[in-house]
Amino acid sequence: MSPIREIRPVQPYPYAMGKYYEPLAVVAPGEVVDVYTEDAFEGRITSTDDKPTQVLGKYVNPQTGPIIVEGAEVGDTLIAHIEDIELTRDFAVSLLIPGFGGLTSSRLAPSLQEPLPEKVWIYQRQPDGRFAYDPEIFSITAKPFMGTIGTAPDLEMLSALTPFDHGGNMDVPDVCAGNAVHLPVRVPGAMFFTGDCHAAQGEGEACGVALEISGRLRVRFELVKNAPIEWPRIVSPQEIMVAGSARPMENAAKIAYSELVYWLENEYGFDRWDAYQLVTQAGKLYVGNMVDTYYTVVAKLDRQYLPPAAG
Amino acid sequence: MSPIREIRPVQPYPYAMGKYYEPLAVVAPGEVVDVYTEDAFEGRITSTDDKPTQVLGKYVNPQTGPIIVEGAEVGDTLIAHIEDIELTRDFAVSLLIPGFGGLTSSRLAPSLQEPLPEKVWIYQRQPDGRFAYDPEIFSITAKPFMGTIGTAPDLEMLSALTPFDHGGNMDVPDVCAGNAVHLPVRVPGAMFFTGDCHAAQGEGEACGVALEISGRLRVRFELVKNAPIEWPRIVSPQEIMVAGSARPMENAAKIAYSELVYWLENEYGFDRWDAYQLVTQAGKLYVGNMVDTYYTVVAKLDRQYLPPAAG
Amino acid sequence: MSPIREIRPVQPYPYAMGKYYEPLAVVAPGEVVDVYTEDAFEGRITSTDDKPTQVLGKYVNPQTGPIIVEGAEVGDTLIAHIEDIELTRDFAVSLLIPGFGGLTSSRLAPSLQEPLPEKVWIYQRQPDGRFAYDPEIFSITAKPFMGTIGTAPDLEMLSALTPFDHGGNMDVPDVCAGNAVHLPVRVPGAMFFTGDCHAAQGEGEACGVALEISGRLRVRFELVKNAPIEWPRIVSPQEIMVAGSARPMENAAKIAYSELVYWLENEYGFDRWDAYQLVTQAGKLYVGNMVDTYYTVVAKLDRQYLPPAAG
Amino acid sequence: MSPIREIRPVQPYPYAMGKYYEPLAVVAPGEVVDVYTEDAFEGRITSTDDKPTQVLGKYVNPQTGPIIVEGAEVGDTLIAHIEDIELTRDFAVSLLIPGFGGLTSSRLAPSLQEPLPEKVWIYQRQPDGRFAYDPEIFSITAKPFMGTIGTAPDLEMLSALTPFDHGGNMDVPDVCAGNAVHLPVRVPGAMFFTGDCHAAQGEGEACGVALEISGRLRVRFELVKNAPIEWPRIVSPQEIMVAGSARPMENAAKIAYSELVYWLENEYGFDRWDAYQLVTQAGKLYVGNMVDTYYTVVAKLDRQYLPPAAG
Repeated sequence: MSPIREIRPVQPYPYAMGKYYEPLAVVAPGEVVDVYTEDAFEGRITSTDDKPTQVLGKYVNPQTGPIIVEGAEVGDTLIAHIEDIELTRDFAVSLLIPGFGGLTSSRLAPSLQEPLPEKVWIYQRQPDGRFAYDPEIFSITAKPFMGTIGTAPDLEMLSALTPFDHGGNMDVPDVCAGNAVHLPVRVPGAMFFTGDCHAAQGEGEACGVALEISGRLRVRFELVKNAPIEWPRIVSPQEIMVAGSARPMENAAKIAYSELVYWLENEYGFDRWDAYQLVTQAGKLYVGNMVDTYYTVVAKLDRQYLPPAAG
Repeated sequence: MSPIREIRPVQPYPYAMGKYYEPLAVVAPGEVVDVYTEDAFEGRITSTDDKPTQVLGKYVNPQTGPIIVEGAEVGDTLIAHIEDIELTRDFAVSLLIPGFGGLTSSRLAPSLQEPLPEKVWIYQRQPDGRFAYDPEIFSITAKPFMGTIGTAPDLEMLSALTPFDHGGNMDVPDVCAGNAVHLPVRVPGAMFFTGDCHAAQGEGEACGVALEISGRLRVRFELVKNAPIEWPRIVSPQEIMVAGSARPMENAAKIAYSELVYWLENEYGFDRWDAYQLVTQAGKLYVGNMVDTYYTVVAKLDRQYLPPAAG
Repeated sequence: MSPIREIRPVQPYPYAMGKYYEPLAVVAPGEVVDVYTEDAFEGRITSTDDKPTQVLGKYVNPQTGPIIVEGAEVGDTLIAHIEDIELTRDFAVSLLIPGFGGLTSSRLAPSLQEPLPEKVWIYQRQPDGRFAYDPEIFSITAKPFMGTIGTAPDLEMLSALTPFDHGGNMDVPDVCAGNAVHLPVRVPGAMFFTGDCHAAQGEGEACGVALEISGRLRVRFELVKNAPIEWPRIVSPQEIMVAGSARPMENAAKIAYSELVYWLENEYGFDRWDAYQLVTQAGKLYVGNMVDTYYTVVAKLDRQYLPPAAG
Repeated sequence: MSPIREIRPVQPYPYAMGKYYEPLAVVAPGEVVDVYTEDAFEGRITSTDDKPTQVLGKYVNPQTGPIIVEGAEVGDTLIAHIEDIELTRDFAVSLLIPGFGGLTSSRLAPSLQEPLPEKVWIYQRQPDGRFAYDPEIFSITAKPFMGTIGTAPDLEMLSALTPFDHGGNMDVPDVCAGNAVHLPVRVPGAMFFTGDCHAAQGEGEACGVALEISGRLRVRFELVKNAPIEWPRIVSPQEIMVAGSARPMENAAKIAYSELVYWLENEYGFDRWDAYQLVTQAGKLYVGNMVDTYYTVVAKLDRQYLPPAAG
């Protein structure tokens, strides 16, 4: 058996997703590859003495990509089967960046108030595998996932900080090992990007910065031919999910639940109004991020509710 | 031991929460009482042939209350310890009501489109205890909770369909047996109301109508003197939670997480920015309702993160 | 000719609108009355040395009312013809109140930032009739209007700081002399309230506090029998308008324009889609307030577009 | 005197704004040029029998550009002095497009309702210069302006349907003859785009489609060196304005007013809190569009309030 191919990020990194970048690699469906990612700050923050506003460059959230998936055509769905996510560093960083986060005014929702203070936390991996900047205060169990994952939009070049219908910076903890992320193919070759590995993150990513870390995504691509999807989907052993991204947040929720209803109707044979009933009585709805240019909300349904054959 | 006192709803029912109603009962802290509630439609919907727009009255969501809690003074916190919720009927109803719900335009977010069709589902309790209108399609495990619970605002009389800082129609599944709901006391005697029992409900309550059913809430009140809270809190054996209600939905999320941060700071001794970190990396954030006059979002934190003594 | 009857505010002032207050006066349709109003702070701010957070009471925005309009029945429309608004003081006040305003986080959209500073401006009426705290910096032409005007909701008691479908704290400069404000009658006698006179105000009321002043509203009531309206309307010699109040702000805009479309369809005979075209190409849409519990947006159409007979 | 140079759109048209397009023309500051634009539908709609969903291509809103402005460097401000806008056709079109508009659910705010009907209106220029599809119903005075105008973002390629901090599809009627539009220079040469000429449009552009027409923009560019601006500004003989674009709509209002406050502070010497007062008491705030991917709100201030020397 041949070793797993490694795909590493190359400078200048993409800080956006779009078809205007040169391909980084070409991968065939079925091949397992290891995609390495920088942390969201390119590893520039390593100490609580670092000043983010001085150390960081003009852009953040460097991506590894674009990866061309052989045979991907417009209208296909690309499934990224996440076999594993390994953290490639023994510390993670989180920051308070002025004007960024869920509990502060920001560039897109400004106020005349003073920003919150700038601050850095360095979380070290502990002997028990948890992450802590001071284990006396609290420590966090590692639950690695990719904060940013997506394909190229057909026309636009969207910042890697933006989540939208192509995926992008969704900050959804269900983008983790064992799950499959379904992404639309809107340009030939799909042009897959990923980055922003998180050692862990709460729902909503309240301050805007999770446990940022470098990582290695072991992924296998699958193509579903001629099967367009409007918004990203996630399938876990236990649940099916849709991730909607919009502002205000209720619109992200409307996108997520309406896509779930259509999914149940079109692929699982439910009557539309029965599907609406089902998600009303049994759906889950959590916030991925409340900080990005669009908010991301995930609607999910347990597979116990799906017809046996189809589920 | 004396039998548990029963408090039953009396017509004309309150369809709002406020100090302008006559007290229904007076209860002492520590006493366990059984509070009976009508379903949100006063039991008027019993068949799929019923037309909600014809059968329902001008108001829906009748409340049982107000219940005066002896000794409650402005500035106290009222804790409602939910010992049990029993469903008092063997069927639940759900509806599609024109102009109401999460996936339709509505009175507060209008469009010129035709409304969705009117429709009734009658869910029967199955031999296995689950609820189904057709067990071939799907059935739902009962997880009873009170959709509406709250105290009187100090000045306003708010519709029982409105969730806000007094509680109200939050539609939060964590208002269930075993949990304690903390509510502000803003008028003498607190004036507690409850109703809208749900046999089960998904997060977000997508179509706006859960498994509506009559119920019996077994509750014990506790007063925390001179301890004002701004927004409702819920404490479970596993988690502490805040329920924020506002529009747009991101504001409900901001309320929930900021109150959780202040709670961690003021009662558990965290530094404010450390508390912000903690909820960022370990908080949960789910949508209670995406349909009411205000949306409700719940922020929660596992008690494992609380200091041992305080937790 | 008999002198015009004077209706003066009486303590304790109503700080809300609802049917739970005792009537202050009874007025017949057609009678012209002078309604006097306190300023929004009850005249407690008179100097730049006053500290609002110390001087103000628990509630602000005292109302004069409720005024019973003889013969008003549920389902009627009450038209308040504003004959004149006189400012009854030679100074107005504006404030920066911590946590209140359009360019700050607030209780309903919180952040962890420090609030803006507390500050008072005293605007004196200048010899040329304009208002200025320092005529070297700027002075404002007086354009008096009533910031708050409305009728009692049928069920709720709503804070006088809230604008909604009953009117209330809309902060709409078109509520001025020469214009007619159409309000729904939802309780017997209509129960009219007004207050919050502004010597002038910009659109949006950016900091949340206009040129607050005591005033005298000369008003004549007219009843349109059995003619329910959903939202307040304003008719000027030049334009017809609808004021929608909701959050987020786009919902207020949707309410205002959809009600204008229905108005054109139902009372002026337009085809619905032609009416939608007309407001698209010729409507105006400005923000009344961007600071209150609900935002108010006004949609207007020039009367030149109305059919000659009906206009 | 040499004739005015003509710049005409070239196929394939840009349907987005970004630095990834080849330059269409190079213009020097001070030179007056005539920029011709297609209508938003490339002239494909000419009859009420046309079916937009069949006739329109994948993209709409073709742009003329990018135009390189000689000497423009990152950090400059580009001022587009609009000398004239001529309508180059004697008819305009408006449409009802399913799933698009202010009074319908849409892709970014979905519902399960049926979309509004598809419909075309052809407005002919009347002998009096007004536009009407049936002068018996109504006719509209021509007030030509450019619905879309902007420069290239530094990193992203944004759809020509999107308004944002680079300008874009703001749909602001003040982008008209006699006014100067200030745009940020974020890439070398500025890369100016324009299109979407409107014969007229109401505020908010309620149905999403104004009086769409081909046009000719006579424009003169001016560069202000090393003077970065965050958001587009418009200067008219009477007023100064900022256009903010965001969702929800209140965020667009916050952007517009906060930028106006900073403008007054930084360029006109006002104290920040005095500037906040001034816009509170004298500002105007209207909605440009309530239909695009971001909503646009314009804050304006009459120049009478500016210091004499600076104004």
